[in-house]
Amino acid sequence: MAVNLKPTRSEDLYPVPGLKLGVAEASIRRAGRKDLLLMTLAEGAQIAGVFTQNRFCAAPVQVAKEHLASGKPPRALLVNTGNANAGTGADGLRRARETCAAAARLLNCDPAQVLPYSTGVIMEPLPEERIVAGLPACVADLREDNWVRAAEAIMTTDTVPKVRSLRVRLGNRTAAVTGIAKGAGMIRPDMATMLGFIATDAPVTPQALQRLASDAAARSFNRVSVDGDTSTNDAFMLIATGALGGRAVGEPGDAEYTALRAAVTEIAQWLAQAIVRDGEGATKFITVRVEKGGDEPECAKVAYAIAHSPLVKTAFFASDPNLGRLLAAVGNAGIRDLDVDGVELYLDEVLVAERGGRAPGYREEDGQRIMKKSEITVRVVLNRGIAESVVWTCDLSHEYVTINAEYRT
Amino acid sequence: MAVNLKPTRSEDLYPVPGLKLGVAEASIRRAGRKDLLLMTLAEGAQIAGVFTQNRFCAAPVQVAKEHLASGKPPRALLVNTGNANAGTGADGLRRARETCAAAARLLNCDPAQVLPYSTGVIMEPLPEERIVAGLPACVADLREDNWVRAAEAIMTTDTVPKVRSLRVRLGNRTAAVTGIAKGAGMIRPDMATMLGFIATDAPVTPQALQRLASDAAARSFNRVSVDGDTSTNDAFMLIATGALGGRAVGEPGDAEYTALRAAVTEIAQWLAQAIVRDGEGATKFITVRVEKGGDEPECAKVAYAIAHSPLVKTAFFASDPNLGRLLAAVGNAGIRDLDVDGVELYLDEVLVAERGGRAPGYREEDGQRIMKKSEITVRVVLNRGIAESVVWTCDLSHEYVTINAEYRT
Repeated sequence: MAVNLKPTRSEDLYPVPGLKLGVAEASIRRAGRKDLLLMTLAEGAQIAGVFTQNRFCAAPVQVAKEHLASGKPPRALLVNTGNANAGTGADGLRRARETCAAAARLLNCDPAQVLPYSTGVIMEPLPEERIVAGLPACVADLREDNWVRAAEAIMTTDTVPKVRSLRVRLGNRTAAVTGIAKGAGMIRPDMATMLGFIATDAPVTPQALQRLASDAAARSFNRVSVDGDTSTNDAFMLIATGALGGRAVGEPGDAEYTALRAAVTEIAQWLAQAIVRDGEGATKFITVRVEKGGDEPECAKVAYAIAHSPLVKTAFFASDPNLGRLLAAVGNAGIRDLDVDGVELYLDEVLVAERGGRAPGYREEDGQRIMKKSEITVRVVLNRGIAESVVWTCDLSHEYVTINAEYRT
Repeated sequence: MAVNLKPTRSEDLYPVPGLKLGVAEASIRRAGRKDLLLMTLAEGAQIAGVFTQNRFCAAPVQVAKEHLASGKPPRALLVNTGNANAGTGADGLRRARETCAAAARLLNCDPAQVLPYSTGVIMEPLPEERIVAGLPACVADLREDNWVRAAEAIMTTDTVPKVRSLRVRLGNRTAAVTGIAKGAGMIRPDMATMLGFIATDAPVTPQALQRLASDAAARSFNRVSVDGDTSTNDAFMLIATGALGGRAVGEPGDAEYTALRAAVTEIAQWLAQAIVRDGEGATKFITVRVEKGGDEPECAKVAYAIAHSPLVKTAFFASDPNLGRLLAAVGNAGIRDLDVDGVELYLDEVLVAERGGRAPGYREEDGQRIMKKSEITVRVVLNRGIAESVVWTCDLSHEYVTINAEYRT
């Protein structure tokens, strides 16, 4: 189902020294699948994160934030699928804390050094006893080269495990950057039912790591939209184990910071795009690029108006060059003083609209040819400035409705 | 297909003296269906309107606004379905003007006294010669009791003609209020592919009529959402022919104004709800009521966050009490200081969530029972003020995708 998304091969993945991963089948929702992931961090590891903006943020999100704020150095991340522990009130908080305490006992650390993450159905009690029971198997499974199995263990309606890796030169050192993510539906800016974990063995100062996480999220996970919904559980965590040794990467201007940011952003973008490619029911991968706007926010408004329009998304599903729906979405973006006569609209390289209407040279068969492709770029040129913005999205298919109508059955 | 929506019977409709309607089969998009409507107004009639906020507003919208602004008293409204004449640039404006000029010649008035309205596919040239050719048949068909056929002539993907009527006492006079509308998809606040025309024979001052149109729209057409899209062509026009005679209804405080506003609002709400009931692929009619908010805009934000969420809408389609999706939508509404522990969520009379989680007394079978109904009220009590807001919406079904993926084929 996923659009041009092949699983990454194990041999293309670089372990991150200082980080081990262990998975287990804990039968959290169903028996017979990996659904629990434990990541342990070497001493001295740093971690930074970006969390959902949803006011109903889930119990694990609240606990993870608390534990990060405690100032105690994180030693483990505990991730379960099958149950999001969201909309569960005080009882949910208690259950999340119990799973952290159980992991802490096994790892001989403080519960506040364990960060919990959950994804799956919401408003159902977390079966924390199954997680606790599954933890010893996770610990027994801990290995540095367990990334593929870790990616599998956090999937929900994902059809392909999402994991990516690269190496980056930092002066005379070579660092690994490896990450996993899960997504599928409920994806939009400001995070979604999206969990992402990227780790590097490079040492990074805490301040630089937080900035790096925010920068990378802004250029990746916060640029995608599947259905415009934002989940209660989203988190993107960036881990620097420091196992590589040497001077900590820190200053925004320094070359090592720039190189590391480029690598982390590349992995984050690959993962974010993989989430869209594997969006619920997706049959097409759409890049929406808005150019020559007055500022970035107005470009983003236009891009999201297109990416969120069900009419546009069903037209892509049908391979129908119903370009008027694109123009209507641009007109809907809420830019009050937009001069529509100045707007140009392209499908890939084909100019389809200008001066408020169909471009004179446009032929339906050209639009049809582009719409049949599985990867399409919609380019909107506003001609009122120099800013630009990009959003990645997918089409809206029957399969999306099927998946979401039957998710709990 | 439509949810509990039966066509209004002809005998329940009151003609509006001073307004005649004539329809024709003009083969604008397909042969063999009524697709052209002409309404003519007696001398002295007043008209007021609310138009789409989409920046790509269609050619007829631009021309109708121009003609209204000319100050020449409107004598006719010309409505076609099959082609929206939107995204058609200067050529579209020319074609819209030609149809007005043709009607003006037949009616012996100035072209600026004819207001054009179009709905249908966008970005295709309006076949204005077919409209011009169809006009004599419209004129020959002009009658005061043609409301049902008029409602049929403006349908696009609607499955039921939408027409409603009532009588209202204004002092010792009895006025008729009768209206038609078309909708189906692309429906959201600030108007949609929505055309609505309501007429009364009461005399109304121009200022009062514009206020009445805006007030009624705010309580009806701007409170509905099918898919969150806003079209290029929406218009709601309120006509007062004045044929009833007597003093013009005018002051906001006077009892006649209040009575007339109640009647117009009732018709507008019935038509707006009919649009949702007949929303593309709709199988359920959902009322979202948000109460005890800090102010009306924040209540509306929460209501629309629920009404626009594809995850919520697919859960309704599936009759799945996946209440977490409702909480997630509330959390997503953008109210930064919302205390989720104070929020109560009801499905009809059943309290399903409070204190950030599932209500202790809630049982899945109660939720399931409500979700199986074809009419459901979602009630969110924010407990932070005294404001409230209501939005009407429908579910998201396979049929929606089918209709919109195949609209042009």
